[in-house]
Amino acid sequence: MKRLSVLGSTGSIGTQTLEIVRRNPELKVTALAAGSDIASLEAQIREFRPAVVCVYNREKADELRIKIKDTDTAVFSGMDGLIETACHKDADIVLTAMVGMIGIQPTIEAIKAGKDIALANKETLVTAGHLIMPLAKQCGVRILPVDSEHSAIFQSLNGEDSENISRIILTASGGPFRGLTREQMQGIRPEDALKHPNWSMGRKITIDSATLVNKGLEVMEAKWLFDVPLEKVEVIVHPQSIIHSMVEFVDGAIIAQLGCPDMKLPIQYALFYPERRYLDGDRLDFAAIKNFTFEAPDLKNFPGLKLAYDASAAGGTMPTVYNAANEYAVRKFLDNEIRFLDIAEIISLAMDGHKVIGNPSVEEILQTETDTYYRIESR
Amino acid sequence: MKRLSVLGSTGSIGTQTLEIVRRNPELKVTALAAGSDIASLEAQIREFRPAVVCVYNREKADELRIKIKDTDTAVFSGMDGLIETACHKDADIVLTAMVGMIGIQPTIEAIKAGKDIALANKETLVTAGHLIMPLAKQCGVRILPVDSEHSAIFQSLNGEDSENISRIILTASGGPFRGLTREQMQGIRPEDALKHPNWSMGRKITIDSATLVNKGLEVMEAKWLFDVPLEKVEVIVHPQSIIHSMVEFVDGAIIAQLGCPDMKLPIQYALFYPERRYLDGDRLDFAAIKNFTFEAPDLKNFPGLKLAYDASAAGGTMPTVYNAANEYAVRKFLDNEIRFLDIAEIISLAMDGHKVIGNPSVEEILQTETDTYYRIESR
Repeated sequence: MKRLSVLGSTGSIGTQTLEIVRRNPELKVTALAAGSDIASLEAQIREFRPAVVCVYNREKADELRIKIKDTDTAVFSGMDGLIETACHKDADIVLTAMVGMIGIQPTIEAIKAGKDIALANKETLVTAGHLIMPLAKQCGVRILPVDSEHSAIFQSLNGEDSENISRIILTASGGPFRGLTREQMQGIRPEDALKHPNWSMGRKITIDSATLVNKGLEVMEAKWLFDVPLEKVEVIVHPQSIIHSMVEFVDGAIIAQLGCPDMKLPIQYALFYPERRYLDGDRLDFAAIKNFTFEAPDLKNFPGLKLAYDASAAGGTMPTVYNAANEYAVRKFLDNEIRFLDIAEIISLAMDGHKVIGNPSVEEILQTETDTYYRIESR
Repeated sequence: MKRLSVLGSTGSIGTQTLEIVRRNPELKVTALAAGSDIASLEAQIREFRPAVVCVYNREKADELRIKIKDTDTAVFSGMDGLIETACHKDADIVLTAMVGMIGIQPTIEAIKAGKDIALANKETLVTAGHLIMPLAKQCGVRILPVDSEHSAIFQSLNGEDSENISRIILTASGGPFRGLTREQMQGIRPEDALKHPNWSMGRKITIDSATLVNKGLEVMEAKWLFDVPLEKVEVIVHPQSIIHSMVEFVDGAIIAQLGCPDMKLPIQYALFYPERRYLDGDRLDFAAIKNFTFEAPDLKNFPGLKLAYDASAAGGTMPTVYNAANEYAVRKFLDNEIRFLDIAEIISLAMDGHKVIGNPSVEEILQTETDTYYRIESR
């Protein structure tokens, strides 16, 4: 029996995680956390009977308490509640699928409490990898990637020593605007970007996919997760998204993980690692696929990726600036307040105006996020 | 320090193995064996100073004894000598790169003597897999594949349980005659087949590549090596030969090994397994490759592959008949005595006329080989 705490249970990764729980009697949900979607959370409580839940929004938490007073589930709220949920005594593994830098503190506390982490929150490693990875090592807990690219790398490594890695090759679909010139990108509207072809994802990550910022965040995460220098992390555009990522070893052998796009695979792999379990779903038919293509990423027309390498190389608080500026800019783009090309421009300006703090604490990281928003707003 | 016995040291795999030894001071050659090429073997003796060598041909062995009497190397000959070389007390691992069914007995004796086997002799598992694999298990020795496809599968498994395999996907280049009709294949001459594009290989295996019989033999080997039923071994044509083979697991994840064509990689991987070591050589540049293609194998125009599945399904001595008939036919084709399309025809007729002996002993396997040659000759 493995007991899970699922943070971000009403989102795309959260609901797919619960689907895995439904199919595996050896998994049990002991804690759930959501932002404010108490209707979905109530249904999850009634189905999975967790001991505790957290609703980040305090008013919504109060509402939920009334709705579920016929159950045995305790309802917490706010950051304290999120930490309580992450560290619940019965949890063996914490799946962190909340969005944003809100994920850092609960993840740190869960690690300190000895929980394995199935990591789906990007911001955790992007902004605080220098704190998280040594802490996990010290506490003897596993950081298990849930993202499909990082899971592909993790599966390709399958226990091989990171010293034997010569390159990590992250594949990128290239997004819906691959091949366009900057001129052609002038008029892109949110709805154009939201038709991403290969994976079903949330709105923010879909825009990040279109700008290649998503791939930039993955580059930063890969560096921490697999303990390799930034120079060893490469991106190759593979529009079919069948190869989910690869590792090249010192002997020149490349190991890759391929498959149909299904987030349930990396979620299940993380939950049962190092075991593999049967998973229902589509299987690749190579004769039907016919061909894979590859091309170098277009860093000129997609500067978001280039900026990620710059931010990671600068280190310290700079990745936080990159991430916060992007988050801000994507929100504005989705609200039709800025243009598509402005997203990378805003990130670049925010990075230019930032003085790096080396080896920042969680407080300094969170302060940098706030400062970044403020600096952009007051431009 | 790892000490090697290299059987078939003057052939393509043998000389590449010695190249690996040259580059790795931790490897030492303790025994060598060759068929009759004593000029090359003498040079190898003077360079690597093995304790013993075997020249299968007795007259050539006598010649060599005189040539190298200034050294400390003992010279043996015949099957006894080959077994002596395979079982030399100082050897930790035996690389079996001799060609033909001559490989079976020395391999069995080496396993009994507790040596790990770096297996490059195809016939061993094709004809005697039912004896070799249980014996290796019983003696606690490793059977480490050297063939690039099987090494790719072995690397992709990297310790995963064979129970979790849902499919083994062997890639095939398709050979130089891929896409031709039977009519177009009528006039094929040996020199047309010997221009194989992707790997540098011996003449016999080059013809086997062109008929897909080589892939058929690999299917049979894979079944034994990875302990899976025949139905789980698939072949897909991938003309670029960049993906060297793949494994699909029960969760739908496919792990593949890719790389530039270089036999030194699987050889080195087998010799140092489970460790990876640096290996000089070309590295894949995905942006330059641009694309991979796949297609189902053409079993109608390349019946040699279909016949391998039939032979493996029939089991017992039938794979020996398949292999012996092919060996005979390829020799005749290379001597311009039969046509290209006759190769599969001869295999098919030999199989039709054979009454299977189940679970055959080594003697029955070797007798089946002789009987098969005799039956074809006296047709």
